[in-house]
Amino acid sequence: MPQWVHSFNLGQADRAVAPENRSAKVLGGKGASLARMSGLGLPVPPGFTIVTDACAHVLAKGGRFPRGLEAEVKAALARLEKTAGARFGGAKRPLLLSVRSGAAVSMPGMMDTVLNLGLNDQTVLGLAADSGDAEFAFGCYRRFIAMYATVVLGVPEEDFADCPPDAARAHLDAVARATGHAFPQDPWEQLWGAIRAVFLSWLNPRARAYRALHGLAEEGGTAVTVQAMVFGNRDARSATGVAHTRDPMTGENRLGGEYLPRAQGEELVAGRSTPLPLTGDERTLEKAMPAAFRALKRAAATLEAEYGQMQEIEFTIERGKLFLLQTRATKPSAAAAIRIAVELAQSHTITRAAAIVSIEPRSLERLLHPRLDPAARRDRLGRGLPAAPGAASGAIVFTAAEAMARAEAGERVLLVRAETSPEDIRGMHAAEGILTTRGGMTSHAAVVARGMGRPCIVGAGELAVDAAKGQLTARGRVFAAGSVLTLDGASGEVFAGSVATIEPELSPELATLLGWADAARRLKVRVNAETPEEVARARRFGAEGIGLARSEQMTRDPASLLALRRMILATGPEGRRQALRDLLPLQRAAFKRLFLAAAGWPVTVRLFDAPLHEFLPQGEAATRAFIAESGADATIVAERLAHLAETNPMLGHRGCRLGITYPEIYEAQARALLEAALDAEADSGARVAPEIMIPLAATGREVELVRSMIDGVAAAVASERGKQPAYSLGCMIELQRAALCAGELARAAAFFSFGTNDLTQTSWGLSRDDAAPLLQEYERRGVIAADPFVAFDRDGVGELMALATARGRVARPELLLGICGEHGGDPDAIAFCEQLKLDYVSCSPFRVLIARLAAAQAGIKSQPQTETRAGRAAPRRRSAAPTRKRPQAAKARARARRRPSA
Amino acid sequence: MPQWVHSFNLGQADRAVAPENRSAKVLGGKGASLARMSGLGLPVPPGFTIVTDACAHVLAKGGRFPRGLEAEVKAALARLEKTAGARFGGAKRPLLLSVRSGAAVSMPGMMDTVLNLGLNDQTVLGLAADSGDAEFAFGCYRRFIAMYATVVLGVPEEDFADCPPDAARAHLDAVARATGHAFPQDPWEQLWGAIRAVFLSWLNPRARAYRALHGLAEEGGTAVTVQAMVFGNRDARSATGVAHTRDPMTGENRLGGEYLPRAQGEELVAGRSTPLPLTGDERTLEKAMPAAFRALKRAAATLEAEYGQMQEIEFTIERGKLFLLQTRATKPSAAAAIRIAVELAQSHTITRAAAIVSIEPRSLERLLHPRLDPAARRDRLGRGLPAAPGAASGAIVFTAAEAMARAEAGERVLLVRAETSPEDIRGMHAAEGILTTRGGMTSHAAVVARGMGRPCIVGAGELAVDAAKGQLTARGRVFAAGSVLTLDGASGEVFAGSVATIEPELSPELATLLGWADAARRLKVRVNAETPEEVARARRFGAEGIGLARSEQMTRDPASLLALRRMILATGPEGRRQALRDLLPLQRAAFKRLFLAAAGWPVTVRLFDAPLHEFLPQGEAATRAFIAESGADATIVAERLAHLAETNPMLGHRGCRLGITYPEIYEAQARALLEAALDAEADSGARVAPEIMIPLAATGREVELVRSMIDGVAAAVASERGKQPAYSLGCMIELQRAALCAGELARAAAFFSFGTNDLTQTSWGLSRDDAAPLLQEYERRGVIAADPFVAFDRDGVGELMALATARGRVARPELLLGICGEHGGDPDAIAFCEQLKLDYVSCSPFRVLIARLAAAQAGIKSQPQTETRAGRAAPRRRSAAPTRKRPQAAKARARARRRPSA
Repeated sequence: MPQWVHSFNLGQADRAVAPENRSAKVLGGKGASLARMSGLGLPVPPGFTIVTDACAHVLAKGGRFPRGLEAEVKAALARLEKTAGARFGGAKRPLLLSVRSGAAVSMPGMMDTVLNLGLNDQTVLGLAADSGDAEFAFGCYRRFIAMYATVVLGVPEEDFADCPPDAARAHLDAVARATGHAFPQDPWEQLWGAIRAVFLSWLNPRARAYRALHGLAEEGGTAVTVQAMVFGNRDARSATGVAHTRDPMTGENRLGGEYLPRAQGEELVAGRSTPLPLTGDERTLEKAMPAAFRALKRAAATLEAEYGQMQEIEFTIERGKLFLLQTRATKPSAAAAIRIAVELAQSHTITRAAAIVSIEPRSLERLLHPRLDPAARRDRLGRGLPAAPGAASGAIVFTAAEAMARAEAGERVLLVRAETSPEDIRGMHAAEGILTTRGGMTSHAAVVARGMGRPCIVGAGELAVDAAKGQLTARGRVFAAGSVLTLDGASGEVFAGSVATIEPELSPELATLLGWADAARRLKVRVNAETPEEVARARRFGAEGIGLARSEQMTRDPASLLALRRMILATGPEGRRQALRDLLPLQRAAFKRLFLAAAGWPVTVRLFDAPLHEFLPQGEAATRAFIAESGADATIVAERLAHLAETNPMLGHRGCRLGITYPEIYEAQARALLEAALDAEADSGARVAPEIMIPLAATGREVELVRSMIDGVAAAVASERGKQPAYSLGCMIELQRAALCAGELARAAAFFSFGTNDLTQTSWGLSRDDAAPLLQEYERRGVIAADPFVAFDRDGVGELMALATARGRVARPELLLGICGEHGGDPDAIAFCEQLKLDYVSCSPFRVLIARLAAAQAGIKSQPQTETRAGRAAPRRRSAAPTRKRPQAAKARARARRRPSA
Repeated sequence: MPQWVHSFNLGQADRAVAPENRSAKVLGGKGASLARMSGLGLPVPPGFTIVTDACAHVLAKGGRFPRGLEAEVKAALARLEKTAGARFGGAKRPLLLSVRSGAAVSMPGMMDTVLNLGLNDQTVLGLAADSGDAEFAFGCYRRFIAMYATVVLGVPEEDFADCPPDAARAHLDAVARATGHAFPQDPWEQLWGAIRAVFLSWLNPRARAYRALHGLAEEGGTAVTVQAMVFGNRDARSATGVAHTRDPMTGENRLGGEYLPRAQGEELVAGRSTPLPLTGDERTLEKAMPAAFRALKRAAATLEAEYGQMQEIEFTIERGKLFLLQTRATKPSAAAAIRIAVELAQSHTITRAAAIVSIEPRSLERLLHPRLDPAARRDRLGRGLPAAPGAASGAIVFTAAEAMARAEAGERVLLVRAETSPEDIRGMHAAEGILTTRGGMTSHAAVVARGMGRPCIVGAGELAVDAAKGQLTARGRVFAAGSVLTLDGASGEVFAGSVATIEPELSPELATLLGWADAARRLKVRVNAETPEEVARARRFGAEGIGLARSEQMTRDPASLLALRRMILATGPEGRRQALRDLLPLQRAAFKRLFLAAAGWPVTVRLFDAPLHEFLPQGEAATRAFIAESGADATIVAERLAHLAETNPMLGHRGCRLGITYPEIYEAQARALLEAALDAEADSGARVAPEIMIPLAATGREVELVRSMIDGVAAAVASERGKQPAYSLGCMIELQRAALCAGELARAAAFFSFGTNDLTQTSWGLSRDDAAPLLQEYERRGVIAADPFVAFDRDGVGELMALATARGRVARPELLLGICGEHGGDPDAIAFCEQLKLDYVSCSPFRVLIARLAAAQAGIKSQPQTETRAGRAAPRRRSAAPTRKRPQAAKARARARRRPSA
């Protein structure tokens, strides 16, 4: 038979709570913390907890208590009476109880509590006699009646509106009127009623809504904790309060919090009186009740050391004596959390590994971007997907050209589009933030904005853009170009007008933590970057290489874009070659700038990838402008545009398919790349050996074909320059077929880089351009837990990566393996990459910090045993840095990189 | 040291050719057939063959002969002199030789031959004396000089133009003039020159072009066969000819062929004289040379029994004596091949299994459709992809409406479109054939046309359609609507005007062969069909169930299409429900018709799958017509059309995503299905239990959700009708994620059906709508061997199927497994399905015959040993029918099907 009841602080009885039963899952958060505090010898009012399983039983059996519960409660209460030296229902020194709920995961204020239970017409007299304070006793009685009536008997609060606030009798009469029965005088009837009511409160609408909102399971139920009452309102030496072991905004190691003298906890929560500070200048607890304060400070230190996290502690002081009612870890701000973790590790309260693991990697993102001042007023217009963090205010514009023009004139602008295309890039760069009404988390706007570090909201379908009219419509309000809006890229919210922001600063504690993280990780962290500015930023953030430079993104300048368009719209190889000849010096210069900026780093450059028509003028006006600028034939342009149109461009003529069907494109790119590498090497004196990456290969033959093309160009460059350019050649794994046939591909490729965006698209058969509304609907309906373009899909995409990794390594043991899709900065994906023992992850500059931390966490968690508290548990390994696996493969790779083409 | 030379018919010497060396790979096709005929004791002129490896050696070493070759040739020639009783270069009875090439795979007429070798100014006199015919001898000499000069010495044929045809001296002078050297008189010099010339002819441009065209390897080389000459032109009792063991057009078992009296083989090939028939009414070989004819007939029977295939035999008769020069299997017409195979099996020459295996399954397709009369004249306009077989002539029309109107008026029409959409279906049905200028082998036009059995050519990019003008342009010629064209769906060719066709008839031999095939296969064959007509046709073709009824294809009638469009364009669930209420009786009736037509069969119905916008009016005119017809609001229609537009519809909001986000659609379909099943059951008295199939699932959760929807509808129908409808529920596996997570899906699904079209699309990241030009280019460049939408991709798609099958069976051992994509009728895919031990394949009606044969071949080939010739080899099993694997799983499945929902 299960044990339904666990007692605490009843002499030696608390020892009965075995450590495995001290969990929040069994006892609820409150019950577990009481059991643990009691075990530490801290002053908690004695009591017992009925386990969460009993709740599940009661709910399943239509309110019936499980067999054995009654007997266990009676036995526990008997022990409690003994410990407290008071009798439940006793006429003299009556034992009064609090009955509180406590779920495994805290749901503050959502479920029910009954205080002062055990009072009736007789025992109130005993309390009055015992306390020597009749007013106090009858006040307690009156509060108990009202609380019990509303919580257990379902009497509406309004029914007490006419009662004089201090008349217990009037309250009893109101209950009788409302229920048709006298208020229960039997303390045991009161107790069972309260216990049942707490169980049933699990199902109340508030609690259900809270669970739905926070993604908590409906199963589980609440525990019930029954405790001897302590009274913060007993006299002037009594008080109630909440203490934080550290400052929750800054993390400073200073006991803080607030208290109310002569009050019960509920008054503090209700906020009707202004609480006083625990420490500081005047009317502090430190000065008012110095002994209790010292006890609290000692308890706080003990608890922080026990839990290894900042704690929030509820306490009551009765007649100068401190009682702890609950402790729990709190969620300080991201900056504070880091400071706390670092200081706890520095004081050897926790290990460095535990400090690393304690920080949610995604929270670092919040430290890098300005954010809305929480105190500022807001006029909310709607919400989209939070695609890139940070907050930005500015005048809205509907075209990239206007964004550039206004920005040049010194104005702060937000670029608002239905969706963006590569044509918009300079406009996006000029803007403070980007808002689109279509697209998902990996749409063009989202990816580019994250790369640039621009706040961005995408897929804000509640808003409508009419670019022709130059209007944004939201909730019936119309905003013309130039209207000022504010975007919160962290929440996805759009506000009218300007909302004040707070600028961030990277703290020394973060640098310390990331230094530890670097020592603890095996995975290298690279960056997806194309410009020297991005590279410089990524270097500051601690990146160790470029994992993805999208060569097609290096043609943003007008001259390159024009040449590129002439190339695409050429009707034959000769026209393409002429345009490519014009493009060559521009590309070479861009590559050289990149190599110089990334000196000392491995640099992976991906060959031209995008579908050609993505680079074409969009719409009639842009087409006319192009024709005027390029002198092209309008009919030919129209024909080529029609020819290049595809029903499903994502499944179209792109990636290496372009380079194979139009070999002159890749030949020109390879020449620009290799010449730039030699030039950069000559300028810097440092070795430059680009990793040239082939996009969208589905077969080994494609990789071989491109390899022979590039080897040919390299031979030509070598004979012209008198020096052999160094490079290696690999491919993206972004098609399911490539993953399954990885062995075939690895025979031709020196490295693989997983393109998880495309793998997700084709695994799910979902276009990232169109999927947002469907995925939102699917999340709402519980079909999927999360958007697979955001949350890494281990079962589908991960499975493919595992297959590809295994098959690739069989064919080529020294294969270099990385990831460069959006998930390269996703902590869960990074953990998975660690499981697969990939060599590196690559992500946008602003996610480099996240990746460093996540890689360290993954490394630590992959160890056989993780130490969390300094000095606890027998550690198998002292250092947090895991041993490097596959050292021979690493050596083979190093050898391979010394060869010009591996 | 390798053996370079193998002799044949030299007394017992032919025994020296070990069976493993009698292969075409070693001896070339000709040499191998001579060795084998010699081994059978048939009359072949004695000789020897130099192996193909010697050719490779000579080509690799710049023309030098390998060590040992010379000695072996000399030894073989010495034995040949002994056998022939004549001496090489002898003044009396000189031995004359033929030197012929012979590659492993026959390349008719591509390489060189020298006859009458060994003649010179002396030996010609010996031949004259020996034959008693000086004119014959000098004629031989003259022919030898001309042949040797052109083949070995590189003298142009024109150089002999001025020579009197019968003057050997003039030929010798011409050679001396052309080469500056006297014609070689030494027979050994002649022989080595001829051997080297034959080897080198492997590299001549004709031969290289032939190999490129036929996909033959450049490696391999040719063998050289040196044989004693026999002379069909020696006297009136001499002749040369070619015999077929059967009639190559009909397969009738009757020796046929033709011959030329008093002639050499080259004259027959050159076609300058009219040959005479071997058998028949007059001037036949049978009557002219009855003894030789009888010998030939016996030899033909022996050879057919030996090879188990129809043979084409080259022969020469010298002075009444028959000599066989070569035998090879020939490629009779598809109909003939079947008749021959069946008769060979019936006469116990080969086993039934061998007869089944001998027929190329795809060849059956040619028997089902009218085809162009090979004798008819053609005016070719261009070529597209041969999407559906058969030939059709008719007046071209550019709209479905015109196709229907003209067809109603009794005209034969061809529907010509850039591409087709579901709106065109009735027009396609009305047309004799379909031609599109865009799309690939699995485009809408191609799939629908194959299902309907309409000849179809797609992606004919050389032709241009201007539907607005009503014009088709091809090679500068313009064809208006009403112009008559002809389509050859088997070759993809388009012709101007009408080309005569031949109507097919299924032969009794085919029925016999397919009966044997049915006994030999384990895989069931189902059909993809939606109409009673298609079901009836498929039943005639031997289908055993419906593997795929596309419910969205059952809304072709105008009333259904209108209701469907109202449903799609509705702005909320109520509007959708109203439209679905109108659609319900139409759907129910269509389902009922299908169930009645398919009585006794398992029937898989797929729930609504297509992207919604595919069913919308396309273009402005159609939209206006819909608005007029439906009374819909034009603004709302425009809004909905814009809302439903997707950048990549193939990766869009379709399949079960529709049914989950608009549950009313699947609920209405399930109701129509289950009510129809009960109605059909009541009408027919036979049990009807549809297999309801969910399209495009990526997760188990989707399957569960749809299952609970359908179970709910079934419960409602059961309570209304007082009878529980029987059904089972399964899903398509057409997404990579579904394949990898098959275990999860199988827990909710009773069956899987592989949708290889979509699997191919997403595996390769290639849209079938756009891919044709790229894939053609890829084939041309040798990147891929074949279009993966046509030729099953074992490495990619097959690998996924294998994973899904294994994982699905672990989760549910009784899982029913089939394939219903385009590859369901592809022999290679069917062989793969047999390897995976799937339960059935499903294909379009016209591919059912192919599937039956291919399934039988796969079953036979999966047996440990295949018997090919009756009575040969120790057979492990007498019956061609393989044993059924997994009998327990089959029983479990049968049990599962008896339950209403498995």
